[in-house]
Amino acid sequence: MKLPEFKAEQWMTKYEKNVSYNMTDTCTPSLTFKQLTMLDHDQLLNDISLDYGTITGDTSFKEEILKMYTTGTVDNITTETGCLHADETVMQEVLSSGDTVITFTPGYQQFVDYPKSLGCHVIEIPLLEEDNWQLDINTFKEAMKNDIRLIIINNPSNPTGSYFNGDVLNIIIEECKKQNTYILVDEVYRDYRYEPSISDLYENGISAGSLSKMFGLAGLRLGWIKAKKELIDSINLRKDYSFISTGPLSDTLGLIALKNKDTLLETGKKVIEENKKIIEEHCKNDSRLSIVMPNGGTVGFLKYEGDITSEELCLGILEKYGVFYVPGSCFGCENHIRISFTHDVASLKKGLEFTTKYLDENTK
Amino acid sequence: MKLPEFKAEQWMTKYEKNVSYNMTDTCTPSLTFKQLTMLDHDQLLNDISLDYGTITGDTSFKEEILKMYTTGTVDNITTETGCLHADETVMQEVLSSGDTVITFTPGYQQFVDYPKSLGCHVIEIPLLEEDNWQLDINTFKEAMKNDIRLIIINNPSNPTGSYFNGDVLNIIIEECKKQNTYILVDEVYRDYRYEPSISDLYENGISAGSLSKMFGLAGLRLGWIKAKKELIDSINLRKDYSFISTGPLSDTLGLIALKNKDTLLETGKKVIEENKKIIEEHCKNDSRLSIVMPNGGTVGFLKYEGDITSEELCLGILEKYGVFYVPGSCFGCENHIRISFTHDVASLKKGLEFTTKYLDENTK
Repeated sequence: MKLPEFKAEQWMTKYEKNVSYNMTDTCTPSLTFKQLTMLDHDQLLNDISLDYGTITGDTSFKEEILKMYTTGTVDNITTETGCLHADETVMQEVLSSGDTVITFTPGYQQFVDYPKSLGCHVIEIPLLEEDNWQLDINTFKEAMKNDIRLIIINNPSNPTGSYFNGDVLNIIIEECKKQNTYILVDEVYRDYRYEPSISDLYENGISAGSLSKMFGLAGLRLGWIKAKKELIDSINLRKDYSFISTGPLSDTLGLIALKNKDTLLETGKKVIEENKKIIEEHCKNDSRLSIVMPNGGTVGFLKYEGDITSEELCLGILEKYGVFYVPGSCFGCENHIRISFTHDVASLKKGLEFTTKYLDENTK
Repeated sequence: MKLPEFKAEQWMTKYEKNVSYNMTDTCTPSLTFKQLTMLDHDQLLNDISLDYGTITGDTSFKEEILKMYTTGTVDNITTETGCLHADETVMQEVLSSGDTVITFTPGYQQFVDYPKSLGCHVIEIPLLEEDNWQLDINTFKEAMKNDIRLIIINNPSNPTGSYFNGDVLNIIIEECKKQNTYILVDEVYRDYRYEPSISDLYENGISAGSLSKMFGLAGLRLGWIKAKKELIDSINLRKDYSFISTGPLSDTLGLIALKNKDTLLETGKKVIEENKKIIEEHCKNDSRLSIVMPNGGTVGFLKYEGDITSEELCLGILEKYGVFYVPGSCFGCENHIRISFTHDVASLKKGLEFTTKYLDENTK
């Protein structure tokens, strides 16, 4: 099973250390372990026995997860080691060599190269900035003339932050019903208070979620899959070959987090909104910069004008000013850099100032 | 990627709840979270930021892991979500459809059915009880006349507890050198103080380990791979598609555990030795029961005489007396049941008494 380098991840692995202004961290500010345990008002942690726990995921934790959806029972949910792992597991479960998959670009490389490593054919439908990164229905319907096993959506998206709302999802679903196509939606950037989940809209809809991005708890490496029971049952059998369980400690910490989900989501949301305002303001004052500001998620795709590649820009500004972005080239899209909305305000402002300065100095 | 039911795991999932005498738990007694945190003498936990941490695994944790091996550096190690997951990752990395794999039976089902799901051909070499579950060198050499990509060994083994010592491993290695065959050894049952690791003996030797079985910390879901740097580098790239990292919380808890590894291993060892004595004593008094008592690991394969299948025996004794075993049928081997050496002494004695009673009542 051969896989190419994961460009955006390897970019971060290579350059993220020792930066002064990280402008591209996809997670809302991380809690410390102490901050999380201070939310353990029911003293759930101490008595946990560190055995395998419940293979299918702790029931109390799954009951809390269920509250973020409108349909189903705990039997529609199983836990995974993060959302990426949930995606991987779903692909392993539903795909076979020779299947065809549809996904969208610019998007997350896992959705293209992982299916390919399983021997699948992948159709990448471009989303255009001039359409606000939204779906062109005709292009989509044309692609659906093939025999499609699975559609993979990141909703909201990394890197654009663009979001297919319920109406768009329903158009996709209507096409999928005709051939029982599965729809996997990576909902790791979902605001679980507002945005609909594919698993509540469509029988063959599969939702992957986690505590990493919106809850600031990537360090728990804890995610889940919500889907029809039959599929969850198969995935639970697959766990026996893969990682058994997420374990009682992670499950309990996840339970504690979700018992406080409104507070955690609200805290993150405030940071995001404040960041967005600052970025919009900055773009008004520097006409070379623009962004289709997304409604959801934690990231957006900042467009710049200038005769410099995105990689040159990102490497140059990192070296000169310690400002860190992921270049659009990692997503196959030039003249863009991925910016996120999760930063300390002073640091964000400084990073944007240096971005303008660097463009002044290095572009015509 | 289709996989059949994992027999032993599903047996446990189905029947393990609410048993009175669990005779087959493969882990030394689990620590509670509180017991583990009480070992955090350096106050490492509180200030952990719950971000992704170091993708390749926390360096301090890997330095402690390294102390359980005789060769290599931290660059020869990467962390995984348990040993099973380490095995899976290695198989994903080194195997391609059409490759041939050698493994041993009775053994762990993952080593047979996971490679098959990747399109590999699997040669299962039988280990015989009359040889004390040891390798027949001629049979092995005959199998090595094929083009073999990977050999998978569980050392010590689940379910027999049998152990290929350094001399046997060296014979295997000599054959493997001729065609650069990889050897993956699942060392989850290794006593890290005494038993040699394949990764210290052979350049293409891959060691998979974890804190689950010998340290009583399955609940951390934390394992590792040790292998040549080139392979570890590739596996680290693969993590970007799979689960990113094991996270700073698990890594730090693992570090705390390994700073106390001698105590934890010794505590487990005492339980194991005491259990073994009781089982040996019981077998002396019931001539229908016998066991090739292993030198390592936490499990053994108890043989019984009687006109009853292993599944009938296990279901019957569970229903009548609440005594829980895994039947040999889960490992393709009749007239055996898997027993482990990790139990409370009173409970073990009671379970053995009921085993004898049940055989009295239900066999000729």
